Amino acid sequence: MSSVIGYYTTKFGELWDKSLFDLVEEAIKGVLENSRLERRQIDAIFFGNMLAGVLENNLHSPSRIAEIIGTNIPIFRVEAACASGGMAFHLANNYLKANPGKTVMVLGGEKMTDYSPEETTEALMSASSGEEQEAGLTFPGLYAVMANYYLEKYGYDEENLAYIGYKNHLHGSLNDRAHFQKKVSVEDVLKSSYVACPLKVLDCSPISDGAAAVIISNDKKIVGRSEKQIQILASEVATDTISLKTRKSLGEILATKIAGDKAFKESKLNRKKINVAELHDCFSIAEILAMEDLGFWEKGEGGRVVKTLVSLYDSGSGLAVNTSGGLKAAGHPVGATGIKQIGEIFLQLTGQAGRRQVKKARCGLTQNVGGSGGTAVVSIFAV
Amino acid sequence: MSSVIGYYTTKFGELWDKSLFDLVEEAIKGVLENSRLERRQIDAIFFGNMLAGVLENNLHSPSRIAEIIGTNIPIFRVEAACASGGMAFHLANNYLKANPGKTVMVLGGEKMTDYSPEETTEALMSASSGEEQEAGLTFPGLYAVMANYYLEKYGYDEENLAYIGYKNHLHGSLNDRAHFQKKVSVEDVLKSSYVACPLKVLDCSPISDGAAAVIISNDKKIVGRSEKQIQILASEVATDTISLKTRKSLGEILATKIAGDKAFKESKLNRKKINVAELHDCFSIAEILAMEDLGFWEKGEGGRVVKTLVSLYDSGSGLAVNTSGGLKAAGHPVGATGIKQIGEIFLQLTGQAGRRQVKKARCGLTQNVGGSGGTAVVSIFAV
Repeated sequence: MSSVIGYYTTKFGELWDKSLFDLVEEAIKGVLENSRLERRQIDAIFFGNMLAGVLENNLHSPSRIAEIIGTNIPIFRVEAACASGGMAFHLANNYLKANPGKTVMVLGGEKMTDYSPEETTEALMSASSGEEQEAGLTFPGLYAVMANYYLEKYGYDEENLAYIGYKNHLHGSLNDRAHFQKKVSVEDVLKSSYVACPLKVLDCSPISDGAAAVIISNDKKIVGRSEKQIQILASEVATDTISLKTRKSLGEILATKIAGDKAFKESKLNRKKINVAELHDCFSIAEILAMEDLGFWEKGEGGRVVKTLVSLYDSGSGLAVNTSGGLKAAGHPVGATGIKQIGEIFLQLTGQAGRRQVKKARCGLTQNVGGSGGTAVVSIFAV
Repeated sequence: MSSVIGYYTTKFGELWDKSLFDLVEEAIKGVLENSRLERRQIDAIFFGNMLAGVLENNLHSPSRIAEIIGTNIPIFRVEAACASGGMAFHLANNYLKANPGKTVMVLGGEKMTDYSPEETTEALMSASSGEEQEAGLTFPGLYAVMANYYLEKYGYDEENLAYIGYKNHLHGSLNDRAHFQKKVSVEDVLKSSYVACPLKVLDCSPISDGAAAVIISNDKKIVGRSEKQIQILASEVATDTISLKTRKSLGEILATKIAGDKAFKESKLNRKKINVAELHDCFSIAEILAMEDLGFWEKGEGGRVVKTLVSLYDSGSGLAVNTSGGLKAAGHPVGATGIKQIGEIFLQLTGQAGRRQVKKARCGLTQNVGGSGGTAVVSIFAV
């Protein structure tokens, strides 16, 4: 079994003075320092990035990263829209399964704020179906379709969604790497402008810059002398159709369900054992669907349960969700998101989460989604 | 150990009536039919593609492929410039090492001819360094720098390079899937226009459309009942700096050397055992450097040896090179190239190479390069 032995993330936000590879370099240096490793101890690198090609005409990142790391190791770039980071982690974990005694860096990074909203939106829509692109649908629009279906079917309204923004901004206020570190009230969320009804500005994750890195290893010597470490119990991937119209149901993300069921089976853990989870709350509805699809809540009850705020870091409920601030408040530099999720679980399970530390956190889960649910990666960790 | 048990490639060429995913779908159906497998027997898919994001604003291909395959299996997209296909294969092989009893499809595809030469050139240059992009260097320009260095250092001239175009077009004339199926003479090559001195049109691989697929498996039952199969003895990757100016030497591709040495060590084969090799002849000079960097020829002797045409399919020398026609004549739909190389070795080692069949071919090698040598993948096979 492999372990996560180090983590570093840049500040997420509008980082206009830094390029993508400035951020990546900061993450590489930071994670090596945090895990007390030399460059030469890294046997391979996996890099999750979505948009550098489309936005910056910048491909072949493995070779760019080779210039930073300064060795000739294998370096891989993985792209699966907003799940690029999670997929890079999954393949890196798989790499370790096939190669005993190795240490791998998993990087994610994205540079998104140097472009106009129209340019970024068009680039992001490259992850949806051609038909949806042509129809002018945006990701808020696609998730709004799911939100409307869910609210209508189970008799909820926009107030139910608003508790996600409230909770995740509260968490973000305790994370000095978060894009937004300001609390908002449920009323603030409800008063914010519509992006795509019923989703409002404060239901939606922002466009961010940032890079993050973890080190994972199955080298007994290196893991043995690491001060902080968590075990990777499972990492599973599932895909689904890219367009919503061909989905079996609009009230679930099937790929999350399948990947989650496989991951719980692989980990041999009961769902009740999970104390911290980082879920893909690109939109408020997505966190509610994820809690249900992962089997933490019954299908349809999420809209009610969120109002009890059981997922707050200090609720004492036994399962805190998106303590980093989630995509909503910590920000969503696409390729970095899946890595930051794993990093947050690392911090929580090793008692390094500072002001937002969840007490007695022993097991954690991450769920990273690409597009409107076309790809899902679910990973499970324990200390 | 895993085996290649099936191969399909579309025709490579200017396929204006087909989209990228039309070609991918043809390759998926073709390879399933050739290997007599059902969709449900495929456990994962790896897809190599470079340019769909930049040229077509088309990302998240895993989910697009999920719509074609119709199941919820893990699907990964890998990008490493012109080595995207080879890298996808490497990671797929690694996936099998970690997961016994599985069957994986490796796909590669690219759609390049629907754009103006300027658009395609700019997109391709996304795989070079920012400095090289800004200086207006193109890939013919970068390889011309290496060619000039090599010809000058070892006292050769353009005629030495021209034998690569002659040989590979002759091979292409025997391959009905090749982009160019017309023979050219050494004189034709020498008379063709300069692209970047000393490289002429007939020293350069074309811009092509196409898709290719192989099936690899370590499921004993499935491999056992396959009519045709070859073993994967090794697959290794190395990276180097993205820009030429930071390279140790302009007379070699260091990443090829490192990946090759590792692959031969892993395969436990002597270089003399290789009977067929598919090398990354994006430019004539690249095939000569590859033969030397892989240790088939001494450094510097390649320019002389090519003129003896020992690498022709029927030379009887024991090592035939680029019998598919190589990138030069078979074409270079970037993501598909690395897969087509493996497919050609599969055809040769299983006696299915028709008019270009090499006699007594038992072992084969592929070398796939990204950018001007920033990434190299070397794989070794035996029947």
